[in-house]
Amino acid sequence: MERVERISEVREIVAGQKKKGLRIALIPTMGYLHQGHLSLVKQAKQEGTFVVMSIFVNPLQFGPNEDLSRYPRDLEHDAKLAREAGVDLIFHPSVEEMYPQKNRTIVEVSELGNALCGLSRPGHFNGVTTVVSKLFHIVQPDRAYFGQKDYQQYLIVRQMVRDLNFPIEVIAVPIVREEDGLALSSRNVFLTAEHRREALVLSKSLAEAETLIRQGERNVTTIEEKIREKITEESSGKIDYVEVRSAENLTKPEVIDDSVVIALAVKFGTTRLIDNRVVEVKNV
Amino acid sequence: MERVERISEVREIVAGQKKKGLRIALIPTMGYLHQGHLSLVKQAKQEGTFVVMSIFVNPLQFGPNEDLSRYPRDLEHDAKLAREAGVDLIFHPSVEEMYPQKNRTIVEVSELGNALCGLSRPGHFNGVTTVVSKLFHIVQPDRAYFGQKDYQQYLIVRQMVRDLNFPIEVIAVPIVREEDGLALSSRNVFLTAEHRREALVLSKSLAEAETLIRQGERNVTTIEEKIREKITEESSGKIDYVEVRSAENLTKPEVIDDSVVIALAVKFGTTRLIDNRVVEVKNV
Repeated sequence: MERVERISEVREIVAGQKKKGLRIALIPTMGYLHQGHLSLVKQAKQEGTFVVMSIFVNPLQFGPNEDLSRYPRDLEHDAKLAREAGVDLIFHPSVEEMYPQKNRTIVEVSELGNALCGLSRPGHFNGVTTVVSKLFHIVQPDRAYFGQKDYQQYLIVRQMVRDLNFPIEVIAVPIVREEDGLALSSRNVFLTAEHRREALVLSKSLAEAETLIRQGERNVTTIEEKIREKITEESSGKIDYVEVRSAENLTKPEVIDDSVVIALAVKFGTTRLIDNRVVEVKNV
Repeated sequence: MERVERISEVREIVAGQKKKGLRIALIPTMGYLHQGHLSLVKQAKQEGTFVVMSIFVNPLQFGPNEDLSRYPRDLEHDAKLAREAGVDLIFHPSVEEMYPQKNRTIVEVSELGNALCGLSRPGHFNGVTTVVSKLFHIVQPDRAYFGQKDYQQYLIVRQMVRDLNFPIEVIAVPIVREEDGLALSSRNVFLTAEHRREALVLSKSLAEAETLIRQGERNVTTIEEKIREKITEESSGKIDYVEVRSAENLTKPEVIDDSVVIALAVKFGTTRLIDNRVVEVKNV
């Protein structure tokens, strides 16, 4: 496995691999890797691609009051995990390498970014789409892998790729969970033991909501209320949002008559967790 | 020369040429070709590239009260001129091919787009940068050629390419003029004989302004006022703007102590013409 910090180095290595006829996979991350990231690597490896992982905590996607400076970082440990998982190249640029001058260009996906995490994190998704565009142009992959835990991010990137004709296939990989159900996140390290225990209510309430839908519940508000009640009753978590949305385009359905994503964001202490569950419902 | 309408066809042809080791040039146009466009082709041919010309009147860069529907079109004549000039491939997509679904993604370059043509044509440059991004992803050229007549457009595209790390070299090609000085434009066909004659005042006033600067004039307002006076006195043209700006980033200089672009937009009847002149001034 190689590790480079320069854009010119990535381009040279990738061009060499393309000449050999290999297809290129990109896994964009902010590092502090966990099994969720590594499941993306696993899938890319299965498809026989040359796997590039970027590790870059992108300032552009953090708001002024967010956790940019305390976002967890451990490059040496990341490199060890990435190597073991089969990553071929780590691209770990500095902020100066990615933003050498004042950045004036923003890629914006409208509508999809206006709900859910876009409401409490204004500008966040513009930061994501802009840095992902940059990474796409730097690495020029054939495929890019995104975790479904950031379901809204995945849909937004997919929309951007379609609208701007990026010659890239966007692949979503299912959420990886702890044995007890907690969705893996680099931010989980910030949870106290008590909040860690309480946070189980997120995956549990989502599972119960799926059961209700499977049993025939079609009312959006009923589902959302059940989840809210459970979280409020069983934990000290402060709800940012609980929403049932179209799994295709995040619009709010009148009733649940097609596949939906149930998405939520809840704050435990100072740590904001997100989770979601896609429930496939046949169009009736 | 080949002519295709489908994105998939362009990609296939370009991939074949790249395999042969050829470098790819892209010349994005809205068609109704004139010698200005053909000078871009000439330069690309000299550099030994496979030359792709796109011909697409992009609705996204026209405002609701602008001349989208009456923008001149003549594909057969364009194809003849392009072939004679040495274009290898014309990409002439339909609006449906370029925007098959509602477009939600916009590429926006801030600051550079806020002055000059950006003021009277809100949204125009977002339309340009968005369609140019699409064309860049469709054709995947090594180089892209833009005429300096749209100087602001050239600077904006260059900024976008830098900010988003497009693996593309942006090349500016000087304005081509009629013998009497009028800058070539597809919109010139709309001028009446009288307006055509009056429009000469644009290139003349720009030339005089350059002379003044060469003679030592360093006051921005003086230069702008001289041009305005001349246009107003010698023609019926309605001035949209006359501006002296930094040739590098379009900021307004206090005094002229570095290279500037003198840019103007003037309406003759219903036809809006633009012209500019870059004056290289050594940083003193």
